[in-house]
Amino acid sequence: MNRDQLFEQIKAKRSFLCVGLDTDIRKIPAQMRDAFHSPLFAFNRAIIDATAPYAVAFKPNLAFYEEKGAEGVEQFEDTCRYIRQQYPEILIIADAKRGDIGNTSEMYARAFYECGLAGGTADLADAVTLSPYMGRDTVEPFLKYKDKWAVILALTSNKSADDFETLPMADGRPLWKKVLETAAGWGCEPHGQFTSSTNEDRVMFVVGATRAEMLKEVREIVPDHFLLVPGVGAQGGSLEEVARHGMNSRCGLLVNSSRGIIYADNTENFATAAAAEARKIAAEMSSLLDKYL
Amino acid sequence: MNRDQLFEQIKAKRSFLCVGLDTDIRKIPAQMRDAFHSPLFAFNRAIIDATAPYAVAFKPNLAFYEEKGAEGVEQFEDTCRYIRQQYPEILIIADAKRGDIGNTSEMYARAFYECGLAGGTADLADAVTLSPYMGRDTVEPFLKYKDKWAVILALTSNKSADDFETLPMADGRPLWKKVLETAAGWGCEPHGQFTSSTNEDRVMFVVGATRAEMLKEVREIVPDHFLLVPGVGAQGGSLEEVARHGMNSRCGLLVNSSRGIIYADNTENFATAAAAEARKIAAEMSSLLDKYL
Repeated sequence: MNRDQLFEQIKAKRSFLCVGLDTDIRKIPAQMRDAFHSPLFAFNRAIIDATAPYAVAFKPNLAFYEEKGAEGVEQFEDTCRYIRQQYPEILIIADAKRGDIGNTSEMYARAFYECGLAGGTADLADAVTLSPYMGRDTVEPFLKYKDKWAVILALTSNKSADDFETLPMADGRPLWKKVLETAAGWGCEPHGQFTSSTNEDRVMFVVGATRAEMLKEVREIVPDHFLLVPGVGAQGGSLEEVARHGMNSRCGLLVNSSRGIIYADNTENFATAAAAEARKIAAEMSSLLDKYL
Repeated sequence: MNRDQLFEQIKAKRSFLCVGLDTDIRKIPAQMRDAFHSPLFAFNRAIIDATAPYAVAFKPNLAFYEEKGAEGVEQFEDTCRYIRQQYPEILIIADAKRGDIGNTSEMYARAFYECGLAGGTADLADAVTLSPYMGRDTVEPFLKYKDKWAVILALTSNKSADDFETLPMADGRPLWKKVLETAAGWGCEPHGQFTSSTNEDRVMFVVGATRAEMLKEVREIVPDHFLLVPGVGAQGGSLEEVARHGMNSRCGLLVNSSRGIIYADNTENFATAAAAEARKIAAEMSSLLDKYL
């Protein structure tokens, strides 16, 4: 999915909500856990159907599937396939925080963009979250795919972001700003297969919502990029602050909520409750689009 | 596996070789690719049997399995189970470069240390490679497991390590040194469940062999830690240099070779050729242990 298509969807749905599928086997309703061979997928399917009218992106978090081994990974794959089939307009972000180099990074890109299953390959996701530590070598293989996205960690909202991300570099500015500046330059010069797209068409950045005041500084460096903003809801960030400081002329924001939506209710009414919660957030987003777009 | 057990194995085998299982479906012998439902596992099994006498660690690289989807992940799991069953003394490093926070990082730790398969959990690995970008929150869940290891990226040997890893911080020293200093302090103060181990019993660092001269500087910061050193062989690092600058009184080194061993021959003789290559490296390691231990 390219940037224009994403923006069109945002305008059509009046929402920039990303629903995080951090589906924990321990937290889904007991009757669902017991009734299905693929309980994570069964749960996700209900959440997806309930929230699709309000969401422009779904973000399955790989850790929650990998914890169940190959069986869990199968359910991740089925979740992606279901979204593709039923809601092809919705962006799929594989939240995998991968970060390797060379042929290993190429393999990770394939794992999400041309996964080699028996009898063919599957295009499971549109975007993958990546760690910048090892530099451009991590990201480059992901930039070679047309209409796909590398979503690079910049400034996260966890406490130990202060261990390294916010440390000042030699010029006095924090590491996360160096990451934004450097990564925003990748893939822009003539290079291999991806000369026709600008960096803004292939790269997003993760910026935590609990640091919404820093979004102003983020926008000074990357005015045009899409930002994936986790941390609204359970982690306590304010949607109004995020929109005020972070929205650009094409919205430029995907705000994620996971637990606040998918565990809004822990009975068999979970999907209805998830829909209500997503609808509420989308309504606020609609007002914010009126106000700031 | 704890540090004493690892050192005992190194002394017994006269080797500090880690065999990297970067098993690429395109590079394994055609007759094996066609003969098995689980060709990656079938290939690995032959490599493991052939090289186990010379290796103290195996390092499956997750990307190569994930590229094949859930079927590939099954073969990663079977590879780990086979090593556990046949060679329980050998350390298993899941080369996954994971890096997330909070409950997600806990899930990643579970994915390798208590993977929830139908009817129980599997202890697939002894160590997992991790990215330090998000700080302590990434690593902490891995430190809570007794006799398990967090293997943290510090200074890697790829070209774009210069994008961020080697950049000078405010005090003029590179980021990778800050990572070593900071991460070497994690888990040492009284904290939760892991007061009884020192950091050296739970943490290793990745340091690339093509920067062997920097191992001296690494050892000034972390004299006692084990280092996982990739890049000998295909990537061009010198084993002699690595041992001279990096070995400590308990060896403190695991030197990885992947392609140079597992693809030493691309015919049906691949396992014999892999054994010969591993034997050759182990013989050199034996001399280096005599010289520097």
